[in-house]
Amino acid sequence: MADSSTPKPQNTKSSAMAAAADQNPVKFGVIGCARIARKLIRAISLSPTTTLAAIGSRSLSKAQKFLSENRIWLGEATTSTMTVKVYGSYEGVVEDEMVEAVYLPVPTRMHVKWAVAAAERGKHVLVEKPVGVDVGDVEVMVEACRVNGVQFMDGTMWLHHPRTRRLRGLLDDQLLFGDLRMIHSSSTFRDANEEFFKDNIRVKAELDALGALGDAGWYCIGAILWANNYKLPSTVTALPKVTRNDEGVILDCGASFHWEGEDVKVAIFHCSFLCHESMDLTMSGSKGTITLRDFIIPYQEHSASFDFSSDVKFVDLHIGWSSTPKRVEVSTELPQEALMVQEFGRLVHNIKVLGSSPDEKWPGISTKTQLLLDAVKKSIDAGFKTITV
Amino acid sequence: MADSSTPKPQNTKSSAMAAAADQNPVKFGVIGCARIARKLIRAISLSPTTTLAAIGSRSLSKAQKFLSENRIWLGEATTSTMTVKVYGSYEGVVEDEMVEAVYLPVPTRMHVKWAVAAAERGKHVLVEKPVGVDVGDVEVMVEACRVNGVQFMDGTMWLHHPRTRRLRGLLDDQLLFGDLRMIHSSSTFRDANEEFFKDNIRVKAELDALGALGDAGWYCIGAILWANNYKLPSTVTALPKVTRNDEGVILDCGASFHWEGEDVKVAIFHCSFLCHESMDLTMSGSKGTITLRDFIIPYQEHSASFDFSSDVKFVDLHIGWSSTPKRVEVSTELPQEALMVQEFGRLVHNIKVLGSSPDEKWPGISTKTQLLLDAVKKSIDAGFKTITV
Repeated sequence: MADSSTPKPQNTKSSAMAAAADQNPVKFGVIGCARIARKLIRAISLSPTTTLAAIGSRSLSKAQKFLSENRIWLGEATTSTMTVKVYGSYEGVVEDEMVEAVYLPVPTRMHVKWAVAAAERGKHVLVEKPVGVDVGDVEVMVEACRVNGVQFMDGTMWLHHPRTRRLRGLLDDQLLFGDLRMIHSSSTFRDANEEFFKDNIRVKAELDALGALGDAGWYCIGAILWANNYKLPSTVTALPKVTRNDEGVILDCGASFHWEGEDVKVAIFHCSFLCHESMDLTMSGSKGTITLRDFIIPYQEHSASFDFSSDVKFVDLHIGWSSTPKRVEVSTELPQEALMVQEFGRLVHNIKVLGSSPDEKWPGISTKTQLLLDAVKKSIDAGFKTITV
Repeated sequence: MADSSTPKPQNTKSSAMAAAADQNPVKFGVIGCARIARKLIRAISLSPTTTLAAIGSRSLSKAQKFLSENRIWLGEATTSTMTVKVYGSYEGVVEDEMVEAVYLPVPTRMHVKWAVAAAERGKHVLVEKPVGVDVGDVEVMVEACRVNGVQFMDGTMWLHHPRTRRLRGLLDDQLLFGDLRMIHSSSTFRDANEEFFKDNIRVKAELDALGALGDAGWYCIGAILWANNYKLPSTVTALPKVTRNDEGVILDCGASFHWEGEDVKVAIFHCSFLCHESMDLTMSGSKGTITLRDFIIPYQEHSASFDFSSDVKFVDLHIGWSSTPKRVEVSTELPQEALMVQEFGRLVHNIKVLGSSPDEKWPGISTKTQLLLDAVKKSIDAGFKTITV
């Protein structure tokens, strides 16, 4: 296990608080060897506030193979990673007293069991999205964390990118952006490999019941909530067509959200496992427009951009525009997943060392996102009726 | 009136056919002095196949003032424009035997009367959008033109930009784009001048009954049809919120379209007089994505672009994309409205000189666009129910 004296790759200390946390990084146990876990293992290693302590899989050999194949992501500390503990069960990680926090990339239907088991043993919980099969799942996990005084956070990485903070500033700028009136978001991809549609856990009803809605739609719904400062819409209405696989798992769907009492506000999203790669987020205000094409995963790791225009007019005769959107670049030393893990580590540090309460913002975001996801599913199941939230 | 020997500004002869048409340009009468007429007068002058012959307004002094203010758009032929005839009535233009074609920028509710009057006098008809208050209007105009053997076309300019042709090629490319699966379009603008919401003809029920749906939505609906090679959707469902002014005219609405029998295909649009300027068109296929931010009016006159990506994947660990969208630039010597008028002139020339029948493509496009516009309105009026087309 990499100890605190081991140099970290691209070690970035963003504040005195983080520096303090660096002296005693949070020891992470990873439960499950899903592909996404490779990205998080690297992030845990890149983040100065966290370190990898254990990996558990349903078989010891699988866990060993996984660690061996992913040692490269553990950066300069590779030689000392021999001390990462390897378990042939998820229980092993949850019961390891050294492990302070767990990361859960297991299929959605297994989240409650392992999140609650971890929380009850005083371990902080970082869980992949979709957080639950429904909001009831989320509430159980969040409550278990609250009762046990541990931090809860889901794995939505883009919220931690500095670009997101920059966008927030623009959205809140009455002069440049005005009132938020329209949000459009899409999250689509298509695995050319036909096996995806048969074997991937995301299209298996008994593993990830929510298909494209839970996997890709999670981001769209989260972005719409984020843009609205987490004010829930009044109604959710699914677009009147959904595509499913033979097991009934959603492969393609969409919905619109509306907020009563606000003069004009509409949000639309579309998520799909059947369309070419897209991660669009467009936010239109009364005075400005913001567009991203890669909001979930930036095109590149260390720099991300968005387009912004404000107070654009059509020139005389309407033969052109007074200006074209301005491209704004935001750089980041650490990739967004490492910033997420760093923030998680910082919050855990605050609890451990400063005696703070767990931050309520992150479980609140997970709960609201899942609540709307449930509403979309309910609208689909009710024949695309409008659902009051 | 500029005769054929007068040099035209940026005279571009795109084909031998056009060159022949140049020798005897179609003589246009403009009925009404709306702001958009200024743009069209310039276009008629720029196009080598057309020339401005007459302008009519409800008052002679208004028509004279309008011509005088807009002489600048008539290019190098300015001095000879003294011969453009000016009428203090719409009848004057329709009954002028010199006038071969009329352009109708009058409010929508007046289209049928003047289009039919012109057609019955053997004049070709170029009419602003929305073409009618409903598809019944359009059918009356189209039929009057058919019976009288004259050309009908609506004023949707972007269809005539070479960028549009370039896009068509990509959309039809199975290898690079695959099957069309998702279209998103928006057409929004916000007049900072509050008088717009009281006085503009587009928000007056007795003039332009369709508000933002007819004005801005026309383009979105047209783009969705165009992308689908004018295959009508099976169903149209309005988004469950609409904003209206005190007169009941639509200021903001949207809808989704679905095609039965196709595995996955959805189109969504949003149109508004209450959001910052946008003219977005995104088309997603199974293998590629095309995005335009200025599809209705290109940012600049002589060059327009779009972004295209094909077969993009996420790189290992999903920490970036295999490539970023490629920006494709398409230049044009003539602006799109002049290309529209040039095409109209070419078709009229074919009828006049070659004895061809009027082209049925353009009236067909107008009819289908209005048909879907009607369906959106019907869905709104029925409480956002799904309408079978």
